[in-house]
Amino acid sequence: MADGEQTSMTGAEALVGTLADLGVAACFANPGTSEMHLVTALDREPRIKSVLALFEGVATGAADGFARVSGGPAMTLLHLGAGYLNGGANIHNARRAHTPMINVIGDHAVPHLRYDAPLTSNIVGMAAPNSRWIKSVDKVGDAGRLAAEAWQASFGPKPGPVSLILPADSAWLEGGVPFNGDMARPALNAPETQAIEEAARLVADADKPVLIINGTALTEDGLKAAAVLKAAGIRIMTDTFYAKMARGAGRFAPERLQYFAEGAMEDLEGCDLMLLAGTDAPVAFFAYPGKPSLLVPEGCHVHSLGDAGTDSAAALAALAAKMGVSASADLAPLSKPDAPTGPLSAATVGASLARHMPAGAIVADDGVSNSLMSYIQTTTAEPHDWMMLTGGAIGMGMPLSLGAAVAAPDRKVICLSGDGAGMYTNQALWSMAREGADVTTIVFVNHSYRILNIELARTGAGNPGPAAQGMLGLGNPEINWVDLAQAMGVPAVEATTAEDFDAVLANSIAEPGPRLIAAVVPG
Amino acid sequence: MADGEQTSMTGAEALVGTLADLGVAACFANPGTSEMHLVTALDREPRIKSVLALFEGVATGAADGFARVSGGPAMTLLHLGAGYLNGGANIHNARRAHTPMINVIGDHAVPHLRYDAPLTSNIVGMAAPNSRWIKSVDKVGDAGRLAAEAWQASFGPKPGPVSLILPADSAWLEGGVPFNGDMARPALNAPETQAIEEAARLVADADKPVLIINGTALTEDGLKAAAVLKAAGIRIMTDTFYAKMARGAGRFAPERLQYFAEGAMEDLEGCDLMLLAGTDAPVAFFAYPGKPSLLVPEGCHVHSLGDAGTDSAAALAALAAKMGVSASADLAPLSKPDAPTGPLSAATVGASLARHMPAGAIVADDGVSNSLMSYIQTTTAEPHDWMMLTGGAIGMGMPLSLGAAVAAPDRKVICLSGDGAGMYTNQALWSMAREGADVTTIVFVNHSYRILNIELARTGAGNPGPAAQGMLGLGNPEINWVDLAQAMGVPAVEATTAEDFDAVLANSIAEPGPRLIAAVVPG
Repeated sequence: MADGEQTSMTGAEALVGTLADLGVAACFANPGTSEMHLVTALDREPRIKSVLALFEGVATGAADGFARVSGGPAMTLLHLGAGYLNGGANIHNARRAHTPMINVIGDHAVPHLRYDAPLTSNIVGMAAPNSRWIKSVDKVGDAGRLAAEAWQASFGPKPGPVSLILPADSAWLEGGVPFNGDMARPALNAPETQAIEEAARLVADADKPVLIINGTALTEDGLKAAAVLKAAGIRIMTDTFYAKMARGAGRFAPERLQYFAEGAMEDLEGCDLMLLAGTDAPVAFFAYPGKPSLLVPEGCHVHSLGDAGTDSAAALAALAAKMGVSASADLAPLSKPDAPTGPLSAATVGASLARHMPAGAIVADDGVSNSLMSYIQTTTAEPHDWMMLTGGAIGMGMPLSLGAAVAAPDRKVICLSGDGAGMYTNQALWSMAREGADVTTIVFVNHSYRILNIELARTGAGNPGPAAQGMLGLGNPEINWVDLAQAMGVPAVEATTAEDFDAVLANSIAEPGPRLIAAVVPG
Repeated sequence: MADGEQTSMTGAEALVGTLADLGVAACFANPGTSEMHLVTALDREPRIKSVLALFEGVATGAADGFARVSGGPAMTLLHLGAGYLNGGANIHNARRAHTPMINVIGDHAVPHLRYDAPLTSNIVGMAAPNSRWIKSVDKVGDAGRLAAEAWQASFGPKPGPVSLILPADSAWLEGGVPFNGDMARPALNAPETQAIEEAARLVADADKPVLIINGTALTEDGLKAAAVLKAAGIRIMTDTFYAKMARGAGRFAPERLQYFAEGAMEDLEGCDLMLLAGTDAPVAFFAYPGKPSLLVPEGCHVHSLGDAGTDSAAALAALAAKMGVSASADLAPLSKPDAPTGPLSAATVGASLARHMPAGAIVADDGVSNSLMSYIQTTTAEPHDWMMLTGGAIGMGMPLSLGAAVAAPDRKVICLSGDGAGMYTNQALWSMAREGADVTTIVFVNHSYRILNIELARTGAGNPGPAAQGMLGLGNPEINWVDLAQAMGVPAVEATTAEDFDAVLANSIAEPGPRLIAAVVPG
C-alpha cells in the first residue's frame, strides 16, 4: 500500500488483527470508554478469546498465567493510567517471572490530551518502570506495526511485559494497516561457548560446586541435563521463586534455595563455586538488620552460564557435553502419602494434594507461609507443573490460575492461596465461574498475615502491642470464604479436619469447573 | 541537637511522631515486611488511629475520604512499589479531588537496593506522576524533617497526594529526629485583587455570564456568596465532578455541568462570559469522534478568579463585594418526596434517600449512571455533604465512605456504588465491619457496566456482538451482593421494590454500624 493511503480498517482492528496473526490467542480485559473500539474489534476476531475481569489485577495476573502455560503472550485491555495502576502489581510479578505479556492501554484521543481531562495521566511515566518496551500509537497508520513490535519485544532480550498505548482516536480512525512483514518469534539467546568452557574448567577445580538454575532449565528437558550434572557431582538448586517448573514422578527434583537469608547462607556454607543458569546471583528477599543481602558465601567464585535472556536448558546440556558426562542422577519415583488424619494443617493439606493431584496438573502457588509443605510432599506426586509468585506482590494466585485454565482447558489447575493474599484479587473467582475454569482453589484460612508475624520478630521491630497485632490479623471479623466464593458463582466448602479436606479435595478434582476449599489451618 | 548526634529514636518513630505532632490522626495501612518498624511505631502512637485495609486501593481511597471530611491529610502505609501500584487508582482520584494525603511507602533498606531483590522497583518513577511531592528518607536523621515537608506539601500550592518513601534501614536505625520547628498549616492562596476587579468589569458588560465553581466555593460559606452572585444575574454551575459540596435544605443549590459534552455545550449556548473559581475551564470527560473537547461556547470570554490552589469562597465573596451586591437568591427549602411505590429504580432509590437521609449525612457517590437521580432528589433533603468520584477511576465509593466514617464517627455515611464499581474494592466492606463504620452502602445492582453500554453507542464503535456484550455485562454469573457483604461481616439485604427499599433504607439508617443494601435496578 502506498504511504498515506487510507484503508477502511480502524486502528483498533489493525492492532487486534496483527496480534491474532502473530498467534496471540487470549485477551484479559477490563475495558472502559476509551477502549470501546478495541472491544468491538475483538468481537470480530474469532482467533482471540476475550475474558472479562472485574479488576485489572485479575486481567494482568491471568495474562501471566496464560503465558506461563502456553509459552506466548496474551494481551490485556487496560483503561488509561488508572487501569494500568490497578493491574500494576501483577505486571510487576510478571516482569520478575520473565513472562511475555502485551498490555494494551487505552488513552484519550491525542487532541484531547492537552485538556487534562479527569482520567488523563502520565501513562508512560507510570508504566515505563515495569515495561520492557513501551510505545504509544499516536498515528492510526502505526497501529499494526507497533502491535507487531510490542509482540516481538515481549520475548526479549529478556522476556517480559510490554506496554502498547492506544489513544482513542488511533483506535477509532480508519487507516489502520495490519503488519504483514516477516516476523519470527524471537528465541532465547544460545549459551556462549566460552562461558561453558570456563564453567567446565571451574567445576574440575572445585571442591563443592553448586549450580543455581531457573528459566528453561526447569523444563522437562532442562531438568534431564541438570540430573546429569548432579550425577557428575554438582549440587543443583533452583531459585527460591521461579515462574514454572516440571515436577513430580519421572522428573529430576533439584533442591530449592531457602527463603530466609540466614538459612540459605548456612545451607550454602563451604561452596567454592556457584554457577548460574537462567538467573542472577541469589539475593535475600528482604534486608534485615545485620544480615547479608547477597547469598554467596565468602570466597565462593561466581560464574554465569547466562541470565534470564539465555536458554538455560541448552546451557546445561552444553556443560554436560563439555564435561563429557551422561549418567543421570535418580529421578523422582511415584510415591504418594497415606491418607492424613487429625486436625487440618499445612502438612495434611500437602499430603492430600500429593495423593489426589492428577497427572498434568498445574499448581499456582500464592500460599505464602503455608504452601511449602505442599511443595515438598508433591515432589513424588504425579507429573505436574508448579508456578510461583516471583515478584512478592501477593494476590497473584487466583488470577494466575484463571489464565492457566484458559490456556490449558484440558488440565486441572490447583490454586494455593493465603487468605490475606486471596483477598487482594478475590474478583478472579467471578471470572473463573464465568469461564467454567477448571480450577480448584485452596485458601489457607488462618485469619492472619502469618508471614508478617514471623517477619515482625525477624526484623527486631519489637513485641507487637494491640494496634500492631490488629495490623497483622485478619480476624475480627473472620472472612467467610465459602460465602465469598459462592457470591461470585464458585461452589465452595470449608474443611477443618484432615479427613474432611482429603475427601473434599478428591471431589473437587473429580468434578470439572471451579471449586474453592476453605482450608482452616492454625494461625 | 548537634549535627550527627545519635538519638535512641528510630526513623520510623521520628516519622510517625512528627506527623502526629502536626495533627495527622489516622493511618490507613496495608503493611508488609519492610514496614514492620512503622507498624510498631504506630502501635506506640495513640494520637494516630491505625486502620487495616486488605487491599491498598482501600487504604488510599479511605485516606481521601478522611481528608475530605476532616480537612487534613491522613497517612497511608504502602508496601514498596507494588503496594503503591495497588493503591494508585485512588491516589489518582485524590489528585483530581485536590485532597491532601501522605502516602508513606516502605522500601528496601538502602544498601539492599543495588541487589535488585524481587520486590525492588523504581518507586520514584511509578509514583511521581500522581505525587505533588516525592522524596525518599535515605538517611535516618532526615525522617522527621521530611515527614514535616511531606505534610506541608500535601496542602499545596494545590493540595494533593504526596509520597514519602521510607527505606527499611531508615525506619529501623536509631538516630531519628522528630521535626520540632514552626510549621503553620499552609492556607490556600487569597484571590488576586486584579482578577476580581477585572471580573466585576466583565460581568457588567456581559449579557449571559456563567460562573463555574469548585473547591471552597462549595462549602456553606462559599455557597452563600454564590447565592448573592446568582441574585445579581450570574448563572452558577459546579463542575460535573467535585470533591465535596454542602447541599440540602438551607443551602444554595447551584446547577451542575452535564457529563456528556453535547449536553453541556447545548446548555451553555449563548454564554458570553465564563468565570472560573477554584477550577479550570471545563473539558469533556472523554473525546468522541467529531465532538468538542473544551466546553466553552465559541466567542465566550473565559476569566479565572483562581484555580484549585485559590480560596474560591473568598474569591466569590470578594467579587460580590466589588459588585456591591448582597441580596441572595433563594436557598433550597426542606422538601421531601412521598414514599415511592412500584418497581425499584434509580428514581425511587433517590426518593427514599431524600426522605430518610438524616441531617449531617455524608454521601460518597460512586454510583456511575445510577446516582444522578439521587443527586437531583436530595437537593431539598436534610443538610448534608456530597462527595464525588473526581478522577474517573471507579472503585472509590466504599473506601471513601470508610475514611469518611473514621473521620466523623457521629455522622451517617451513605455510599452509592455501581455493582461494577463496587467490585474493584469490595475489600472495603471488611474494614467497615472491623471498624464498625457507620456506613449504609447502597449498591445499584444491574449486572452490567451500564455506562459502557451507553458509551459504546456514543463512540460509534458499532453494534456489540456476543463477545462485546460479554465484556460489558456482569451477569453470568450474577453476583450475590448480600452474601458477598455478609462474608466480610457487613449485614446486608436485597431490595427489589420501591416499598421494600424504602423500609430497608429507613432501618439501615436507624441502626448504627455498617449495612449494605443490594438495590436491584433495571440494567
